[in-house]
Amino acid sequence: MIDRLTEGRFQPEQTLLGPGDDAAVVAAPDGRVVATVDTLVEGVHFRLDWSAPEQVGQKAVAANLSDVAAMGAVPTALLLSLACPGTTSTEVLDGLASGVWDAAADAGIGVVGGDTVSSDTIVVSITALGSLEGREAVTRSGARAGDVVAVCGKLGWSAAGMAVLRRGFRSPVAMVAAHRTPRPPWRAGPVAARAGATSMIDTSDGLLADLGHVARASRVHIDLSSRLVPVADKLRDVASALGGDPLTWALTGGEDHALAATFPSEDAVPSDWVVCGEVRSGAGVTVDADRWGGAGDPGWRHWR
Amino acid sequence: MIDRLTEGRFQPEQTLLGPGDDAAVVAAPDGRVVATVDTLVEGVHFRLDWSAPEQVGQKAVAANLSDVAAMGAVPTALLLSLACPGTTSTEVLDGLASGVWDAAADAGIGVVGGDTVSSDTIVVSITALGSLEGREAVTRSGARAGDVVAVCGKLGWSAAGMAVLRRGFRSPVAMVAAHRTPRPPWRAGPVAARAGATSMIDTSDGLLADLGHVARASRVHIDLSSRLVPVADKLRDVASALGGDPLTWALTGGEDHALAATFPSEDAVPSDWVVCGEVRSGAGVTVDADRWGGAGDPGWRHWR
Repeated sequence: MIDRLTEGRFQPEQTLLGPGDDAAVVAAPDGRVVATVDTLVEGVHFRLDWSAPEQVGQKAVAANLSDVAAMGAVPTALLLSLACPGTTSTEVLDGLASGVWDAAADAGIGVVGGDTVSSDTIVVSITALGSLEGREAVTRSGARAGDVVAVCGKLGWSAAGMAVLRRGFRSPVAMVAAHRTPRPPWRAGPVAARAGATSMIDTSDGLLADLGHVARASRVHIDLSSRLVPVADKLRDVASALGGDPLTWALTGGEDHALAATFPSEDAVPSDWVVCGEVRSGAGVTVDADRWGGAGDPGWRHWR
Repeated sequence: MIDRLTEGRFQPEQTLLGPGDDAAVVAAPDGRVVATVDTLVEGVHFRLDWSAPEQVGQKAVAANLSDVAAMGAVPTALLLSLACPGTTSTEVLDGLASGVWDAAADAGIGVVGGDTVSSDTIVVSITALGSLEGREAVTRSGARAGDVVAVCGKLGWSAAGMAVLRRGFRSPVAMVAAHRTPRPPWRAGPVAARAGATSMIDTSDGLLADLGHVARASRVHIDLSSRLVPVADKLRDVASALGGDPLTWALTGGEDHALAATFPSEDAVPSDWVVCGEVRSGAGVTVDADRWGGAGDPGWRHWR
């Protein structure tokens, strides 16, 4: 099966040894490698009645590319571990694998290794490797009082897409696609690093929750301005149709895989990024200097 | 949970950035990184009534270290993805994680990242990274007619241990331990590479099946000598008690994670390795110039 899945697939220059041996060999030109793993489970992170197998594969890759980007790195390779029941159809298997490979090829990288095992549930686990291209990693702990907070990518779209799917609708297509196959702005990660980003994170848990990680790691207070947080017109339209709150989706919806970062000044913020808050002394995350919603955990919960 | 699992754990020098950020950063001193992933599924690769959680963690690491070793590389870091039901006890979770961490620390490496997700079945997926220390990778495709075949590590012990457990016994302890927590001779991989090994593989599927992979990739014929294949006295004892065949276990038992390699001559074979066959022109794998057993696939099947 592995032969069938890997045959004729794209492998770029940095894949020094691809699939088919005990392990792969990937170039790590600056003597360091960025590595992260992300796992999607059927029934928890995806449903095959909501998403085509290709879309699940693409989504798994998106989450990983976003994590690599959030370090300021460019992706260099993926490894894929695919656990699934023996009864899984060839269509589903090939679809999952194709989704992973296509998304990898879009990012200019290859799937260099992996394994397929038998399991009661489909579990797609992807490891992404990346290169910092000689730069320091942009961590969660570098935000300083006086920095500005900026975001890049769509906020709340995945949550809106899920709300649409939950009602049994299939449109607006753009929202549903943002949920099924988020396209994280992973090229913006290295751009932000070059521009001097002091901290960066992937918004997988929702903007407030993820900035909470940055605030904690950096020992700072982050205050967002509700009028500056980008809320797309389409998001407002869907919210109004479904009775949701677009700002809540943008602030707390997960799985967007947008990027949030801090920069020393507004002048340093690259185009494509939107300034929406500032870093102060203190702790925690607020919106317009107030705690958001007043409820406990602002973070995202997967739908199960 | 991740904080609790990672706190106070060993991280060596090559872990440039450990757990807690979007991704880890690991040194890759020669500008390349070896990468491999291996996944164990409850009920397929392990049973928690046969193995303690710590042992499952250790076994998952062993399989990965062996894959890295089979390239002639030394391990540098692990990433752990742990999928398990919400009902999994803290003891099982902590045990699994401890098994992984302890085995990593034994190998001088750290668990630099990972994730924990909810799933119906326990799925332990580990990615191992490694360094070739400036050498070329030892692949499966370098065996040449005239080379000798040698093995390092225990052969058939895991199969014997499983046979013991299947009968409801718990001893001989050494055999059961070889099944529950194989200790692959991973330090022997880089030693073989330095000694000029022309090909190498980890015997996860059983010696004959794995040498079949080498024969295919190298387009050669491999002939083993039954009187040279190392069959330990303890293996004979268990076989005689249970009515098994020790040579069959040594040739076809899987999950030993021993190493098999080819060398240009007997003189090149490092100590700790046992010469047990030769490489000829042709195709396939034979024992004493005959096809083993005559049956179809000589390979290992997991017990389900």
